[in-house]
Order: sequence, then structure tokens, then C-alpha cells
Amino acid sequence: MTLFLKTVSVDEAIRIARSIAPPPSIEEVCLDEAERRVLARAVTADIDIPGFSRSTVDGYAVRADDTIGASESLPALLASAGSVAMGERATFPVVPGTCGYVPTGGEIPAGADAVAMVEYSEVIGNEVLVKRPVAPGENVMARGEDFSEGELILSPGRLLSPREVGVLAAVGKAEIPVFRQPVVGIISTGNELVPVTAVPGPGRVRDINSFLVGAFLRRQGCTPVHFGIVSDDREALRQRLSEALSRCDAVILSGGSSKDERDLTADLIRERGEVLVHGISISPGKPTIIGRAGGKPVIGLPGHPASAYVVLLVIAGPLLAAMTGKGDSPSKTEKRVLAENIPSARGREDYVRVRMSGEEVLPEFGKSGLMNTLIRSDGLVRIPAGSEGVEKGEMVEVLLW
Amino acid sequence: MTLFLKTVSVDEAIRIARSIAPPPSIEEVCLDEAERRVLARAVTADIDIPGFSRSTVDGYAVRADDTIGASESLPALLASAGSVAMGERATFPVVPGTCGYVPTGGEIPAGADAVAMVEYSEVIGNEVLVKRPVAPGENVMARGEDFSEGELILSPGRLLSPREVGVLAAVGKAEIPVFRQPVVGIISTGNELVPVTAVPGPGRVRDINSFLVGAFLRRQGCTPVHFGIVSDDREALRQRLSEALSRCDAVILSGGSSKDERDLTADLIRERGEVLVHGISISPGKPTIIGRAGGKPVIGLPGHPASAYVVLLVIAGPLLAAMTGKGDSPSKTEKRVLAENIPSARGREDYVRVRMSGEEVLPEFGKSGLMNTLIRSDGLVRIPAGSEGVEKGEMVEVLLW
Repeated sequence: MTLFLKTVSVDEAIRIARSIAPPPSIEEVCLDEAERRVLARAVTADIDIPGFSRSTVDGYAVRADDTIGASESLPALLASAGSVAMGERATFPVVPGTCGYVPTGGEIPAGADAVAMVEYSEVIGNEVLVKRPVAPGENVMARGEDFSEGELILSPGRLLSPREVGVLAAVGKAEIPVFRQPVVGIISTGNELVPVTAVPGPGRVRDINSFLVGAFLRRQGCTPVHFGIVSDDREALRQRLSEALSRCDAVILSGGSSKDERDLTADLIRERGEVLVHGISISPGKPTIIGRAGGKPVIGLPGHPASAYVVLLVIAGPLLAAMTGKGDSPSKTEKRVLAENIPSARGREDYVRVRMSGEEVLPEFGKSGLMNTLIRSDGLVRIPAGSEGVEKGEMVEVLLW
Repeated sequence: MTLFLKTVSVDEAIRIARSIAPPPSIEEVCLDEAERRVLARAVTADIDIPGFSRSTVDGYAVRADDTIGASESLPALLASAGSVAMGERATFPVVPGTCGYVPTGGEIPAGADAVAMVEYSEVIGNEVLVKRPVAPGENVMARGEDFSEGELILSPGRLLSPREVGVLAAVGKAEIPVFRQPVVGIISTGNELVPVTAVPGPGRVRDINSFLVGAFLRRQGCTPVHFGIVSDDREALRQRLSEALSRCDAVILSGGSSKDERDLTADLIRERGEVLVHGISISPGKPTIIGRAGGKPVIGLPGHPASAYVVLLVIAGPLLAAMTGKGDSPSKTEKRVLAENIPSARGREDYVRVRMSGEEVLPEFGKSGLMNTLIRSDGLVRIPAGSEGVEKGEMVEVLLW
């Protein structure tokens, strides 16, 4: 190993990370637990929806022709042919000159092609005065108008929000095929680390990354498993990594920001597989490792939480998206106008924290290792590797946290 | 009850809904489960962070003055005073003319005020050549620079993302006070409803709303409890509502889109409390009920899922935000340019589904009851009650699903 890491570009690192993602397996969950899961198989409509022509209002099913020219002063006079009950079949036809009451959602009787709203109708004995004309199809949802039997409704890879859950209910899916949530092991390395519950002594800091990574994994739809803090001891780290690899689908290590520690992590990955990337042209986050050990992806994050989080978002995010079956990276972005110049060194991608302020974004300058700007900012602006910076007034894409 | 609902404005309905939200109680969760929860108490830094001046690079801690004018051809020559180990106190001072090795994250020895990176240094025997000048403070994070002891870090009401979880770890919070997730009962009413697992017979439809509402509740940070399908029978609905009120913090009913059903729901709420709103000037979603029964909020949604979802988002969302301690409604919005005119009737707020297309949004016209546009669209554009519509080219705010 040399002092200078041989770095790869961010795009190349993402490509490599995605290429080693194991394909997700499939499990079934009940509909009530499907929210936030990722659909694993295509879903088609099992029936026409709606299964019959329905009224979208409370009113009188009519033949639209019978209402031509109807008005308050000269209403259409129609004989009542009956009343449709909710959840029941319409048992009578609507022939010319007649109408039938239908509640919202009720079946339109044969012969009728529109519904006059009760608000514009008046009942007199066995007859109904309709005071406004209705057009054919008005206030009617036709059979199969929403979905037709056999139609493709949702494709694999779709993240299930409440809307998709509702549609799955509509087509009778009570058990949903979804991608299994990958189990990802977390190891924090470093002689300086103490548990969160301890007060750090001289030279020591609390283990933040275990929880930062864990929360990030949950948000990405993974199940985190904690393997605790390991000191920079080859044998101890070898054992812990081996344990994590045996129990998980992937492992994320953090720490090892100094050269010796980085080399230790890389060596141990190499013992069980290969180091594919050791150094990315990204700031912050350069000393990142991407490897494969025991056939499983292993990511080595920089030790400082603020840098680690940028790498989680930019590099681990796409890997986990592939592992969870989401396909392309689901990063949320928004375009805003930059309110201040951001200078940058050529040759690396800079990720600068920014804060939203109305339609503009303001860079949060300061050391990349600060966590106070991490919680004060709303996201990152990427300055491409070939650029010397972005100028005030330019439109930038904000990668939201 | 009359045929015509006495409607209130959307703003008034939201105000009323929020005013009946019971204040959330507080519980503690372990840090690993804090993601997506809402912080219930202010959190301050228990110590200075970092607790000591740290190097942000691998390098040589120096007195910046000693490096003035240093270059490749004329490096500063400094005597090595020692080496700092990770997690250990720096045991030697850096006096003028000397330096000491410090790994990334290691303690800066007394006397040093900057760190020269190893990449620009060279070791010769017991001496170090520093080939670039460093400024005071360069590559150093000072004690307390990130957070100082006693400083307010996070305020109550904050939704905890991975970043906040990391910061909570930094300040030693292993148990996090969060607002308890409200338990919300769900009842679907209507003679036409059959369970999702059934194939609907004539005039029947599947119960979509139970799952649509359940998934929405989970996304808002509530715990849904299902009370199933109830036919439009006064006694059956009275009993089910009573059961739900006894076990939950709030109840959401859906169905009852026809006048008779609406009246039944309203009557039963009135028996145990009061109906505060019966009809909102919103489209779709007009026949919405907001009430209080047994001291708990009860929302009656329109029966059609597509309408029900608009009311969930616009009206129930702010109520649940208050119940979950999030304070103001956390609706996500984005501004876009409208690509087509949207006409609207004055006197009601229209919520029109729109689909993102680059920088523009396109309205998804069609019956408000269609679910296919619900899953094809990205959100809603609100047309204010006093407006006759929004014109092509205008900037609109999209309420994201």
C-alpha cells in the first residue's frame, strides 16, 4: 500500500457497488404490512373494476335523452321505476320516460346511461322532476373503467405507498410478494471508540456510526444487525467480520480513517475475497473501501460520521437499492437556485451541505467533519469532478438527506 | 338533516381537526429504534464535542509559525517529538522547532495549532521535512467546535432521521424520549363491501379503504387497528364504534357516501359526543365528517377510496401530525410549472391529480373516483376556493402523495 490511494470516480464506484449486489429473494407479507415494502412480482387486475356500472352520486338513473332541455321552469317528468339498494343488483330496467333512484356507488339499472343528482331533482308522488339535463355517462363510472380484468397494474420494483396498498386491495391481493429485506451487519472499528452510554475519556469518542448506519439501513428498507465496537486488532476484527459475514447479506464497517486502519480493513477483506475500490474521488469520503468477502458486499466507510453519511447516501444507497429490489437509486432530489458561490478543487466530486431558504439554497461551509451542519442542512449539492465550482445564481440539484 | 350539507372551508376544517387532537404522551425507545419517531423532549450536549482538539488528517502536529515559507525545495525541518496513538492522550508537547505524528482523529499535542498532512511531509531519521505551509487551525477540529456542553441540539417535535440518530449517539443518549404512536381504529361501513379475499358479487366491491387508511396511518407514524367491515345497520355500527373508541386514541370510519349512510355515522357520533363538521368545500371529498365521540377524534371519510385518500392527506394528515407531536403538517410540496389549464368551480377547493414531467406538471383529468390516476399521478394541485382555475404556465405547488 502506498500513501496515496488510487482513487476511482464516484460513478465508477457506484457502478462497482451495484454490480456486487446479491439479487434479493422473495417473501410474502400480508397486505396490512405491505407499506414501504418493494413489490417483487407483477400484479394484474383479477376482475373488472368496478365490476358493474356505478353511480358516483346520489340521484336518479335516467336515459340522458329524456332530460334534454330540462330546466327549473320546465323539468323533465319521469315515472319512478324503482330504487336500487347498496350492495344489491338493480332489479328493474329504466325504459324511456322512467327513472330509478340510485345511491352513490349503487348499480346503474339496465337502460339508464346517466344519473341526475338528487340536488337537482324533486319527487312528487310516484314521479320525479329532473331540473337539469344530464349528458350520457354523466355521474356514472362504467364497468371496468378503472381497471379491466387482466390489465397490468403494478410492476416489480415498485415501492408500496398507501395508494398502491389500496389498489392491491382492490384487485384482491391479501398476500403480497415482496423482496425480502436484506440483513446488513454493522461493525465500528477504532481504538478511540467508546459505547454511547460511556463518557469518553482522553482521546476517546463515542461510537456514533453504529447508530447512524443502523438508522440509515432501516430507512433504506434493510434490517441492521449490530456487531459492536472492535479495536484495531487484526485477530479481533477478523473474527468479528467473519461472524458478520456468516449471519448477514452484506457488511458495513466504519472507522479506519487513518492509513494503518484502512490497510487493516482492506487486508481482512482480501483474505476472504477482493478489494474492488480503495479510495473514491469524493469529498468528504475519499478513504472508502468497496469489496467482496465470502461472496458478500463489504463497504468500509470513513470513520468520521459526517463523512460516513455522505458515503452512505452516495455510494451505499445505490448498493442497498439494488439489494432491496428498488432498482435505480431512489435518492430524492430538488432543483434550487444557488445563493452563494461554491468553489471546488478539480479532480474530485465535492458534496457540499446546503440549507434551503425559500427558492434558494445556501451552502453550509465549514469543516466536513462537523455534525452540527449535518443536522442544520437539508441536503448536498454535488460539484462535478471536472468543475472548479458552481456560481451564485446557477440552478443546482439538491440531493435531499 | 337536509339534502345540502352545510360545508366549511378546508382551512376551517383543518383548524377544527387539529383543535381536537389529544396531546401525545411520551415513551422511551432505544436509540436503534428511534428512526422515524418524533422527539418529545429537548436534547442538549452532555459534553463538548469533540472532547479534545483532534486532527482531521493523518499528519504532523506543528506550530503553524514553524512552517511559514515551507516548500518542496525549501521544506521546514522539524524534530520529531513523538507519536500520538488513537484513543490515547497526547503525552508530549510540541515546542517550537518540533512536531509530532497524529493519526486522523487523534489528539493534537499541547503547543501545536495545525497539522501538516503526511502527503506533504517526509521523515528522515528523527526529523520531519514539511513541504507546504499550514495556517493556524488547519486540519484541526478544536474541542467543542461541533457542539459545546449544555448547548441545545434538538428540539421536541423533530422527526428523527439517521442524522439526528447519529447526533443523539454523539451526546450519549441511549434511551430517547419520543411521542407515543397514537393507536387509530379503522372501520369500513357499507352494505356493498366484501373482504379483499372475496370475489365481489353483483353490486358489491372489495373493502379497499381499510388497507388504504391502515397504510396511510403507518406512514404517518400511527398504529392502525382494524375493526373490519360493518353493514349500514345502526346497532352493529354503534357497537363497533364503541369498541373502537374504547381501544383507540381516534377512529377513522369510511364509507357512508350516500346521504342515509352519512346521516347514520353522524347520528352515532352525536350520541357519544358532537359532530363538528359535516361537509367540507373540497372536491373530491365533500361528504367528510369531523367529530368527537367519547372525547376522541372521529373522522368520517367518503366511501370512494380515491376521494377518501384526498381527505386523508389534506384533513386527516394535519390531525395526525398534531396527535403524533410533529406540530405543523409535514406535507411534502414541490413547485412546478403547470403544462395545461385546470378549470375549477368557484366556492370549493379543487384538488386535481397531477403527474410530474420534467420541470412541468400535467393534470390527470378524469373522474375523481378513479384509482388508476391515483397510482399514475405524483400528487395534487390545490385550486383555491375563490379561483376559477389555474392557467398553463403558472407556477403551482404540488402536494406530493
